[in-house]
Amino acid sequence: MEEGSRPLDTLNAARNKTVMVVLKNGHHFTGRLRAFDIHINTVLEDAEEYESGELKRKVGTVFIRGDTITIISPA
Amino acid sequence: MEEGSRPLDTLNAARNKTVMVVLKNGHHFTGRLRAFDIHINTVLEDAEEYESGELKRKVGTVFIRGDTITIISPA
Amino acid sequence: MEEGSRPLDTLNAARNKTVMVVLKNGHHFTGRLRAFDIHINTVLEDAEEYESGELKRKVGTVFIRGDTITIISPA
Amino acid sequence: MEEGSRPLDTLNAARNKTVMVVLKNGHHFTGRLRAFDIHINTVLEDAEEYESGELKRKVGTVFIRGDTITIISPA
Amino acid sequence: MEEGSRPLDTLNAARNKTVMVVLKNGHHFTGRLRAFDIHINTVLEDAEEYESGELKRKVGTVFIRGDTITIISPA
Amino acid sequence: MEEGSRPLDTLNAARNKTVMVVLKNGHHFTGRLRAFDIHINTVLEDAEEYESGELKRKVGTVFIRGDTITIISPA
Amino acid sequence: MEEGSRPLDTLNAARNKTVMVVLKNGHHFTGRLRAFDIHINTVLEDAEEYESGELKRKVGTVFIRGDTITIISPA
Repeated sequence: MEEGSRPLDTLNAARNKTVMVVLKNGHHFTGRLRAFDIHINTVLEDAEEYESGELKRKVGTVFIRGDTITIISPA
Repeated sequence: MEEGSRPLDTLNAARNKTVMVVLKNGHHFTGRLRAFDIHINTVLEDAEEYESGELKRKVGTVFIRGDTITIISPA
Repeated sequence: MEEGSRPLDTLNAARNKTVMVVLKNGHHFTGRLRAFDIHINTVLEDAEEYESGELKRKVGTVFIRGDTITIISPA
Repeated sequence: MEEGSRPLDTLNAARNKTVMVVLKNGHHFTGRLRAFDIHINTVLEDAEEYESGELKRKVGTVFIRGDTITIISPA
Repeated sequence: MEEGSRPLDTLNAARNKTVMVVLKNGHHFTGRLRAFDIHINTVLEDAEEYESGELKRKVGTVFIRGDTITIISPA
Repeated sequence: MEEGSRPLDTLNAARNKTVMVVLKNGHHFTGRLRAFDIHINTVLEDAEEYESGELKRKVGTVFIRGDTITIISPA
Repeated sequence: MEEGSRPLDTLNAARNKTVMVVLKNGHHFTGRLRAFDIHINTVLEDAEEYESGELKRKVGTVFIRGDTITIISPA
């Protein structure tokens, strides 16, 4: 496989940038991607939680367990 | 097993081509397959998300956690 | 265990033959079995997807994530 | 542990005999147990599928993914 | 950890004795505990299946896949 | 990490003491914590099962499969 | 990866501080983070359980099985 072809490379390129994280329960978070690991456990900073598209709360730093995540998309 | 007979070979042949990814929640994405790994974590570029067959949003680059995926089909 | 007694042997014998793959969500696919692995990730060619027994669409080549599969049956 | 005390020994003793396999979705199959592995992936021959206790279809040979199985009982 | 302090020791002490096995779907079985393994795959003999507390059927020997089990309790 | 900082240390300190175990299905058990392992498979003695906060039955010794457990709390 | 970039580093920095833990069933706990491990099994002290945003009970020390957790957020 050529360089840059692994999924985690895409997450690595998004470090310190704003991403949207959508959960299996339909909620989503936006925030600055601080950290992730191979389980896709993810930490966002300056995060906001949305439910049905409406801002639910500002949560600051948040650790999201990887198995609850559907997608992560750079803003 | 003869060459070309592994499932990931099919995904590898679809790299940089347009694929449809259907999720367990019924949503699907179309986009250019940029990367995948053995967990079927998948990255699409120029991706669009569909819900009930209707375009929901353009998401650009998107990382999709493998365990949320049902099928991947080359366009 | 005597030769031929492992479940994957049955799948191997079905390579390049038409099989039916039933998913946990009740949908099923028919197609020619091109590839599978130990996770039961499966690739069909010339595949058709059925929902409630009705043809939903022709999907050509399709990669099916193993953990979504209930049964695979040679036609 | 004394000989014969492992769960897979019970399945091994049922090889080539008729068993009932009940799935998590409530469907069940009867058929001759041809093969199984440590994941409880199972192959039945001359199998019949039942839904709500009614014969739904004869499926011949069927590979059943182990994680969909609740119980296996010799007839 | 002192001797006798592991969960599987409790199951081992119940071998050949009558136990109740409750499944995640609410059904339960009673029977003589013949075998179990580290996945909690379990074999009962002279087993009876109950649904909503009512005897549903006598199943003789039954292999129960461990991941469907909630609790096992000696009678 | 300093001593005493691992989650299983908390369970170890609760051995032979009364704990409450809440399951994913909402039921809970109280009883004396006899044993647990790294999967959080847990054995209680002199256990009582509660449903919707009401005592459902006394179950004596009970093996609880770890993956059905939400929380364990010393009384 | 630079230092401080792993998700568990964020949890480590929150040790002995008040955190909110949200479960997959929608309940959440607040308490002082005493311990966690790589499965995200987590122990809180002086914990309170909330349901639909309302205080349900004070639970003192509580062990939370990691696979039931959605997010952990420092207060």
